[in-house]
Amino acid sequence: MENIFNGKLMKLVDIGNTHFHIYNGRIRHLKKPVKLEGEVFYISVNTQKEKEFLKLNPSAVNLKEYVKFNTLYANTLGIDRIMACIAIEDGVVVDAGSFITLDVMEKGVHLGGVIMPGLYYLKEAYKKTPALDVGFVYPTSVPPKNTKEAVSEGSIGMVVEMIKKYGENKKLYFTGGDGEYLAKILNGIYINDLVFQGMIKVIKEEYDNSFAKR
Amino acid sequence: MENIFNGKLMKLVDIGNTHFHIYNGRIRHLKKPVKLEGEVFYISVNTQKEKEFLKLNPSAVNLKEYVKFNTLYANTLGIDRIMACIAIEDGVVVDAGSFITLDVMEKGVHLGGVIMPGLYYLKEAYKKTPALDVGFVYPTSVPPKNTKEAVSEGSIGMVVEMIKKYGENKKLYFTGGDGEYLAKILNGIYINDLVFQGMIKVIKEEYDNSFAKR
Repeated sequence: MENIFNGKLMKLVDIGNTHFHIYNGRIRHLKKPVKLEGEVFYISVNTQKEKEFLKLNPSAVNLKEYVKFNTLYANTLGIDRIMACIAIEDGVVVDAGSFITLDVMEKGVHLGGVIMPGLYYLKEAYKKTPALDVGFVYPTSVPPKNTKEAVSEGSIGMVVEMIKKYGENKKLYFTGGDGEYLAKILNGIYINDLVFQGMIKVIKEEYDNSFAKR
Repeated sequence: MENIFNGKLMKLVDIGNTHFHIYNGRIRHLKKPVKLEGEVFYISVNTQKEKEFLKLNPSAVNLKEYVKFNTLYANTLGIDRIMACIAIEDGVVVDAGSFITLDVMEKGVHLGGVIMPGLYYLKEAYKKTPALDVGFVYPTSVPPKNTKEAVSEGSIGMVVEMIKKYGENKKLYFTGGDGEYLAKILNGIYINDLVFQGMIKVIKEEYDNSFAKR
C-alpha cells in the first residue's frame, strides 16, 4: 500500500507500551521518540509515550479521531487491534505477541474476538518442571507420542486449535512477532505491516473525507 | 470399586510431589506420612517422599512393579497417570491439576497424550495487564463479545477445544482439582478416585496373579 499523502511521503507511528513503531515504507522500532519530517499520523496505546512523542511532533495527527469502527464488541479494542481489523474487512486477524489476539471481521463489521496468552508465556509453563523442559516440535503425532510432542500440542497446538475454530472457511491474516510462524502452520497470510495498512486506509478514506467536507 | 484384599480392608497411597494421598474408601490428603495398618499398596512420583513413607511402612508394596501398561508413547508416563489410564481401558482421561494431562486409551492400549498448562496458570497470564484482569465466564458468545469473554475463551476455551479434538466419539473421564469443572462443561464423567481405581485393578489382576504363580 502506498504511503503517499497530498503528493508527499507520509510517516506513520504506532506508539506501543515499549516501542515507537515508525513506518515510512519500512518499519523501524525505536525505544525513544524522534522528530519526524513531513505529514505525520499516529496511533497510541500509551498516554505517557504519546506525550513524549507529541513534544517532538506537535502537529502529528492522532488517527483515533477519524476511525469509524463497526463492532459488536462491548469493550473498547486497542487502537492497534482496530487498525489491523480495518485493514482486512473480511476474515480473521491474529496478532501474535505477548498475548495472541484473534478478531473476526465480516463485511467490515467486527463480530468479536479472543485473547490468548502468547506462545512465549505458554511455553514458559513447562520450564519449572525438569521432566517437561524438553523443547518443542510442531506439528506432532496425533495423539502425541512422546513428552516433547505432548507439551508442544499442549501449548502451540492449543493456539492452533483455537484459530482453526474461528478461521474455518475464512481468510486468516497474521501479524506480530509469532505471526509468521503461526501463518506457516495454518496456511495463512503473514502481513508484517497490517496495523500500518489499516492506518493508511483510514487516512485515505476518513481523514481525506473529513477535510473535503470543511 | 471395593478395596478389600484377602478379606481385609486395604490402604492405598498415592505419593505426589506435595502430598500423601491416602485411600481407604475415601481419600485423605496429608502433608506428612503416617503409619498405616493392614495391607498397604502405594505408587510414588517422588523418591524423597517415598523414603519417608517407607520408614513408617516398611512392608508397603510398590505397585509399579506389578503394572503391565501397553503404550505407544516413547517416554515413561508418571505412575499416577498410568494408573488413571488403566482404570478406564477405553476413552480419554483428563487429569486437570497444575498441568492438564490428556491420555487416549483404546482397548487397553495407551495411544498417546497431551500436556497442557493448568487452568490456574493460564488465567494468571492476564493478571499482569489491568485491562485484561476482569475475571472469567464460561461458556462465552461465539465469537466472544467483551473482554471477560475474550480472555475466558482464550484460556478455558483453549483447553476445552483441545479436549474436544481428542474426545470426539469417545468417553471422557476427568479427575484432578479442575476435573469436576471441566467434566461439567464437556459432559464428561468426573471420577475423584480414578488413580486409586487403577491401583485396585492392578492389585486384583496383576498382583494377585503373580502371587498365584508362586
